[in-house]
Amino acid sequence: MSSSDPIDIRVCEVGLRDGLQNATGIMASAAKFAWISQAVQAGLREIEVCSFVPPKLVPGMEDAHQVVAHGLTHKDLEVAVLAPNLRGALNAFAAGAHKVTLPVSISDSHSRANVRKSRSEMIDEVGRVCAARDQLPAGYRPHIEAGLATAFGCTIEGRVPERDVLETAVACMDAGCDEVGLSDTCGYGNPAQVKALFKATRREVGEASRGVHLHNTLGLGLANACAAVEAGAGVLDSSLGGLGGCPFAPGASGNIVTEDLVYMLEAQGLNTGIDIDALLACREIVRAALPDDPLYGYVAEAGLPKGF
Amino acid sequence: MSSSDPIDIRVCEVGLRDGLQNATGIMASAAKFAWISQAVQAGLREIEVCSFVPPKLVPGMEDAHQVVAHGLTHKDLEVAVLAPNLRGALNAFAAGAHKVTLPVSISDSHSRANVRKSRSEMIDEVGRVCAARDQLPAGYRPHIEAGLATAFGCTIEGRVPERDVLETAVACMDAGCDEVGLSDTCGYGNPAQVKALFKATRREVGEASRGVHLHNTLGLGLANACAAVEAGAGVLDSSLGGLGGCPFAPGASGNIVTEDLVYMLEAQGLNTGIDIDALLACREIVRAALPDDPLYGYVAEAGLPKGF
Repeated sequence: MSSSDPIDIRVCEVGLRDGLQNATGIMASAAKFAWISQAVQAGLREIEVCSFVPPKLVPGMEDAHQVVAHGLTHKDLEVAVLAPNLRGALNAFAAGAHKVTLPVSISDSHSRANVRKSRSEMIDEVGRVCAARDQLPAGYRPHIEAGLATAFGCTIEGRVPERDVLETAVACMDAGCDEVGLSDTCGYGNPAQVKALFKATRREVGEASRGVHLHNTLGLGLANACAAVEAGAGVLDSSLGGLGGCPFAPGASGNIVTEDLVYMLEAQGLNTGIDIDALLACREIVRAALPDDPLYGYVAEAGLPKGF
Repeated sequence: MSSSDPIDIRVCEVGLRDGLQNATGIMASAAKFAWISQAVQAGLREIEVCSFVPPKLVPGMEDAHQVVAHGLTHKDLEVAVLAPNLRGALNAFAAGAHKVTLPVSISDSHSRANVRKSRSEMIDEVGRVCAARDQLPAGYRPHIEAGLATAFGCTIEGRVPERDVLETAVACMDAGCDEVGLSDTCGYGNPAQVKALFKATRREVGEASRGVHLHNTLGLGLANACAAVEAGAGVLDSSLGGLGGCPFAPGASGNIVTEDLVYMLEAQGLNTGIDIDALLACREIVRAALPDDPLYGYVAEAGLPKGF
């Protein structure tokens, strides 16, 4: 569709964060800059460019400030970042990020493993981040999202009660968030569940629930994305080439593949504003920068359908 | 779910036909027998066990009669086969198959490439097959299905008009078929299209449209399966390990993977009557018999979710 048509679904590229955090190689800053610029060229309007984490815990994110700065040079790009705590969020604010996502795991066990805090302690941390945001100078008010991790199930705890997800969503909004996102951290979600949980969350917090972060661990990533869209989701996270997201096996990407997601949406007449050929060009940048990390994707391998 | 619960969705295993036709290796008859028996043990109630084609055109189907005979030893199993023409169908009748599927391509170009007949000539052939069925002795009346190939698009012709699909469905029913199935031969379908075309076909021929045969060439196989179920489809074809279906590339299976499909359906509370662990055991039989053919599947690699 024409880039001047209104966007039906915003696709948020998370490969630079979720992908690179789980890649075997370290991507040079220059390659990150090139990837971001090419993705914007392709029509992406939201990119999670990095996470503000201690470099000794997650190598490859030392250049977070510079990567945000590069992102900010692009008009119309929402520069999103992840921060696991107040310290990271303050760094993100200092860098000028437009959006900061804080991971709030529904599963206590996962929350402790991921951010060394219980869910309840993490909600308190979200409150401190929002309070810090409220002290920022006029003219800069970054958007704070609580990313509700393990919302569809947890590899440690198994099933996660829907009520816990909804209570956490409300608690995060009460703590001052602008938005909550449902995250299928372990790839346990199924389409019926995605639809039901998204709708239930909407009933609790309204339009503040707009995004989903889906993984493809069990192969249901695109089916779940389709279900989320049907339920009313307006923002879908995905990763170029399926990079990252803890793949279990060769052929099994962890994250849903941006190129395939965009194809699926566009094929159904949903405008993403993204040019698939220009998007595919990002793969060459990533492949050159991370020669040892596999890139997944059906569209890239099979090509677009004749007549598409 | 318990095997005594009513089946919501019938999964038809087509790996022995669509899979083996496109495999690099030739599977020994004994392995086919073992696969069929294990699949029945797992709860499969319909298996497309072979195609009745000239062995010089498609090697590996010389044992079609014996494979049907083995299938018939299993109580409650619907033994389905493919036949490209009257001669093949007569052989299938002689073998005692319960169901014979004839491929009727909507795209004339694909039809000529596949069965050396135009679509219209193939519809005439379907009429001859149905007439021959009507002459069979009392007590044996095989079910005839027209498999509407390239219903969602064609690698040669590109887009395929919906009207052609509907006209062909009606013509096949008029010719005497019991059933028509929508086949996404090239993997070009998308969820919205699958839903719309399945519903439109239902409006034309009613419950005689019940099955879909989907490929995963562009990665949308499971999303499309989900859409088909939502639209009312009751039978879904799939292939163990995604075997066959003309994969374009490593990591890209052509057929949708039976194990993943069953998981997706069961996870959503839809009863298939199939035990996933018993189904996964079929993979060992196939792997041993076809050591050079890759097997795909996310569930097999990642394992079922904790608490499933």
